[in-house]
Amino acid sequence: MKPQLSQKTQVKSRSADLSEWYNDIVLKAQLADYAPVKGCMVIRPYGYALWESIQAYLDKLIKDRGVKNAYFPLFVPMHYLQKEKEHVEGFSPQLAVVTIGGGEKLTENLAVRPTSETIMYDMYRQWTKSWRDLPILINQWCNVVRWEKRTYLFLRTTEFLWQEGHCAHLTHEESMDQVIWALNAYEQTYSDHLAMYGIKGVKSESEKFAGAGQTFTFECLMPNGKALQACTSHDLGQNFSKSFDWSVQDKTGAKVNPWQNSWGLSTRSIGGLIMVHGDDNGLVFPPNVAPIQIVIVPLPNHDDALRLATSIFNDFKNQYRLELDTVEDETAGYKFNQWEMKGVPLRIEIGNREAAQNQVTVYQRDTGLKQIISVSDLVSTLPKLLNSIQSNLLAKHRQFTQDSTHIVDSYEDFKKIMSTTRGFISAFWCQNSQCEDQVKADTKATTRCLPLDSKLEDGKCIVCGKPATHRWLFAQSY
Amino acid sequence: MKPQLSQKTQVKSRSADLSEWYNDIVLKAQLADYAPVKGCMVIRPYGYALWESIQAYLDKLIKDRGVKNAYFPLFVPMHYLQKEKEHVEGFSPQLAVVTIGGGEKLTENLAVRPTSETIMYDMYRQWTKSWRDLPILINQWCNVVRWEKRTYLFLRTTEFLWQEGHCAHLTHEESMDQVIWALNAYEQTYSDHLAMYGIKGVKSESEKFAGAGQTFTFECLMPNGKALQACTSHDLGQNFSKSFDWSVQDKTGAKVNPWQNSWGLSTRSIGGLIMVHGDDNGLVFPPNVAPIQIVIVPLPNHDDALRLATSIFNDFKNQYRLELDTVEDETAGYKFNQWEMKGVPLRIEIGNREAAQNQVTVYQRDTGLKQIISVSDLVSTLPKLLNSIQSNLLAKHRQFTQDSTHIVDSYEDFKKIMSTTRGFISAFWCQNSQCEDQVKADTKATTRCLPLDSKLEDGKCIVCGKPATHRWLFAQSY
Repeated sequence: MKPQLSQKTQVKSRSADLSEWYNDIVLKAQLADYAPVKGCMVIRPYGYALWESIQAYLDKLIKDRGVKNAYFPLFVPMHYLQKEKEHVEGFSPQLAVVTIGGGEKLTENLAVRPTSETIMYDMYRQWTKSWRDLPILINQWCNVVRWEKRTYLFLRTTEFLWQEGHCAHLTHEESMDQVIWALNAYEQTYSDHLAMYGIKGVKSESEKFAGAGQTFTFECLMPNGKALQACTSHDLGQNFSKSFDWSVQDKTGAKVNPWQNSWGLSTRSIGGLIMVHGDDNGLVFPPNVAPIQIVIVPLPNHDDALRLATSIFNDFKNQYRLELDTVEDETAGYKFNQWEMKGVPLRIEIGNREAAQNQVTVYQRDTGLKQIISVSDLVSTLPKLLNSIQSNLLAKHRQFTQDSTHIVDSYEDFKKIMSTTRGFISAFWCQNSQCEDQVKADTKATTRCLPLDSKLEDGKCIVCGKPATHRWLFAQSY
Repeated sequence: MKPQLSQKTQVKSRSADLSEWYNDIVLKAQLADYAPVKGCMVIRPYGYALWESIQAYLDKLIKDRGVKNAYFPLFVPMHYLQKEKEHVEGFSPQLAVVTIGGGEKLTENLAVRPTSETIMYDMYRQWTKSWRDLPILINQWCNVVRWEKRTYLFLRTTEFLWQEGHCAHLTHEESMDQVIWALNAYEQTYSDHLAMYGIKGVKSESEKFAGAGQTFTFECLMPNGKALQACTSHDLGQNFSKSFDWSVQDKTGAKVNPWQNSWGLSTRSIGGLIMVHGDDNGLVFPPNVAPIQIVIVPLPNHDDALRLATSIFNDFKNQYRLELDTVEDETAGYKFNQWEMKGVPLRIEIGNREAAQNQVTVYQRDTGLKQIISVSDLVSTLPKLLNSIQSNLLAKHRQFTQDSTHIVDSYEDFKKIMSTTRGFISAFWCQNSQCEDQVKADTKATTRCLPLDSKLEDGKCIVCGKPATHRWLFAQSY
């Protein structure tokens, strides 16, 4: 069977098969490509511009919090990873290991960092003696490697880019404050910048980070009803400081193991962005993160239109991320469709007839609406349109998520939903891992989190019927 | 023998031993630290802020040129590296090699990228069919690994951070235009941002990049008379496109192997910055790149001074990278010395007596001059002082370089200079590699470059006396 293709853009149908559509659009819009190394990807300029935009937004929040960027080595000696027992067990199966350096077999193998807790914290230990040296507030933007056999572009790759914040404090209270700050900074990045809605919560014991006391997460629902763990913020307690035999003197002279936290957001966020907003014709980018916010397309060989387009471009080029499409040997229709596929929020179309009347057609990517606007009104209309696209996309994703969240009290209903529409299921769970495993075996769904706004209630576990105090959020996940 | 220490800052003497001073100040000012992995370093926040500043400056030049950022994989399959013969010979001895992934021995080993020509160009080949797909203008900011046994902080480390630009063009002329543009962008970054002077030139055959047709370089002279290769820009000709069997159709339908170039600037630049401007009391940063441009130090426990300091801080915090030092339990002298060591260009000192007169003392790090300035004059004086420090530092380094450049016509003089003061030597060379080797064996000096402004002359090779047409620049190097 031939796959359905968009008549406009020749992109596979998103409504028919999200996964097929996703791979197709990532390649066709030149966001990324498969690398010759198994499990790895190449992030092409149009995709990397999204990452630069996310970096700029989040890095400002991080710096405003007083957290400073630094850089730690790519290589982690194997015995470092082994210092925290749960940590090494969690990461061992996914390591890439360097055994040869400078032409010689190494005496100790080096892991390519899957995350940097161990290499950082040994340095932290060396840098601190007393409470005066705390807190340590450090973040790094870098690449990490966790071995994967199959590439799922942006969503699951052996190498990915991320930031990892690693802070250490004198008290648990201060550390928890940082954990929650990071979670909120991520929520802000998703909602304000990427127009994505999600649920903040705590991971179950079995789903938490290897070595953490508690893991906080932000879970976003994808159009096929699967959840994406969009970032995490970990309360590491004193697990690592104890494993590294790291203590500082507090004000009384007593020795204290510092309280630590780590938090990360990766290029995976781009995968979520693509899936959440796209449609059958391709990408739809929220204006705040769009590499190109407005494209101006004068009809080919319309000289007056080209003059007007150039003048509009010059008027607004310092205000917006603007592109002027002056390619001559492509049809207007082809151009429109290409920009449509590339998800540019606003397209300004100009022909000679419109130029004569000093007006333009403005096409809105998210709704498909066209309107004629006089050139003198652009200065007031463009920011309004961009703002409304940004907030509409967020509202749409919020509505979708809420519509796809099912409050369920019967395991039969649970199984039925997970085998059909999927989505989030809010259900009581006794917090026994056996019931969690049972759900996974029966439905492929896992506990995504205990939402932060979950209330204490009298309930019965959806699986075993024993008393349960809270509704957890379940979903199949990426 | 006990090393000499600065009375102010307890830093080792730069004039006595540049190398000892360098390691000492990099550690004491918390720019970087030795990592537990041989040959690797940790870049601490104060050092990383320098890199972020260099990145911001250079990235803007790169984007203004129309070159776009992207990201290619860390791992390069070994058979890719082997496609260009000189290239693999040049890099093989320095590779870190991954042989285990996800718990299994790999069927093909992966090199951790020492540079990304091979992994990038195979993708370029896949992305292009005709002249319409050229030029490709791509840059990436990333980490690379070249195995080193000894760490020389910033200057020579197994892993380092850099940008690598990789462009492909239809003609050699266009490619050369890009090569020279990159070289000039680097010179601009060094002179305008880092206040460093240097010489642009072409590398000799033996010193060029493995796989390049020609390598252009910017060579900076360090205070001990050794040269630092501060960046390079390579004309790759068609070497790689031919090795990768990569061709595109030109406008006539004929197949053309694209003309390529690559160019890089790394964290090594920070090493040069530290050495060039520092003095016996520690770091001296040019204002444009300084992580902190102005520090305000109210005398401890001077309440009026603290109020004035806070008000000045609030007035200027959006204009400068400003720090207000309100720590209470350190002496003013200790604070002054710490900021001195950290190289902050301007220090504003305020006591209660000065606050009463609404004036402050401004200390200039590069010259050590102090002046009393009324608070109302700060708005006009601060930018003047910062600008003058920036240009004075560049002028000083230019003067030093010119004073340390010797025009030499006798090999005896050549050897004498290289065994005493060192510096650049401008001397005729016949361009035979045997003479180059002889110079190296006798004096440890190498050809640094043929300066771009070198004139065609009638001369005799400094070693063999045979005819030579140009004066080359020689120096011992890092």
